Amino acid sequence: MSQWNQVQQLETKFLEQIDQIYDDKFPMEVRHLLAQWIENQDWESAYNNEPMAAILLQNLLIKLDEHFDRVSQEKNLLLIHNLKRIRKLLQGKYQNNPMHIAVVVSNSLREERRVLASANMPLQGPLEKSLQN
Amino acid sequence: MSQWNQVQQLETKFLEQIDQIYDDKFPMEVRHLLAQWIENQDWESAYNNEPMAAILLQNLLIKLDEHFDRVSQEKNLLLIHNLKRIRKLLQGKYQNNPMHIAVVVSNSLREERRVLASANMPLQGPLEKSLQN
Repeated sequence: MSQWNQVQQLETKFLEQIDQIYDDKFPMEVRHLLAQWIENQDWESAYNNEPMAAILLQNLLIKLDEHFDRVSQEKNLLLIHNLKRIRKLLQGKYQNNPMHIAVVVSNSLREERRVLASANMPLQGPLEKSLQN
Repeated sequence: MSQWNQVQQLETKFLEQIDQIYDDKFPMEVRHLLAQWIENQDWESAYNNEPMAAILLQNLLIKLDEHFDRVSQEKNLLLIHNLKRIRKLLQGKYQNNPMHIAVVVSNSLREERRVLASANMPLQGPLEKSLQN
């Protein structure tokens, strides 16, 4: 189970803490749509490694484009609109400073794990290990 | 059938024109969630009538709150997050100038009808009449 799936099972008072982690720096749609992929990337190593961060950002945008193609085929107007907005937002914010998105995503994932831990939600999968380190 | 339902059946090249009508002044989520209710209100009369515009804005926020209660019960984290953001946005933008939202909504609906007409999509329901006037 992805960390994001675990997050969604939290009680309301903890969900309110999760809610505050996300804004236009890292839109919750992105976290939701690319949940498992995001968790599988090494954002922390990209903190101080600009080429690596640039590749992560590029791959993130490619993943969003794949979703965009899907919702375009389905003619899902609202999702098309939101994905366009988000893509433009992320590109504008991070194209010239990809290390910044690595910091933002990494911090958001760490914050989620802190909330899960405070809710006594046992961590599952590969992230359990990374938290224990 | 609501005008919004008709809009969603447009071909891609016309959907791109619809896409450009919506931004944070009138988020597409609001248009989508409250489609029929929005179409049933008299936004044009609220152009120059501040008490009427204030009531329309107030009712719009109440409608959003009803959706918020629903998605909160369902614990739909992403929709809760988006609705919170949108409510805050609309309140911040229009609380002190409710006539402005009447202009924005009314213009958006008119723009949609223009696109529908250019796509030769026959207008249905009560809006057909208002367009013919």
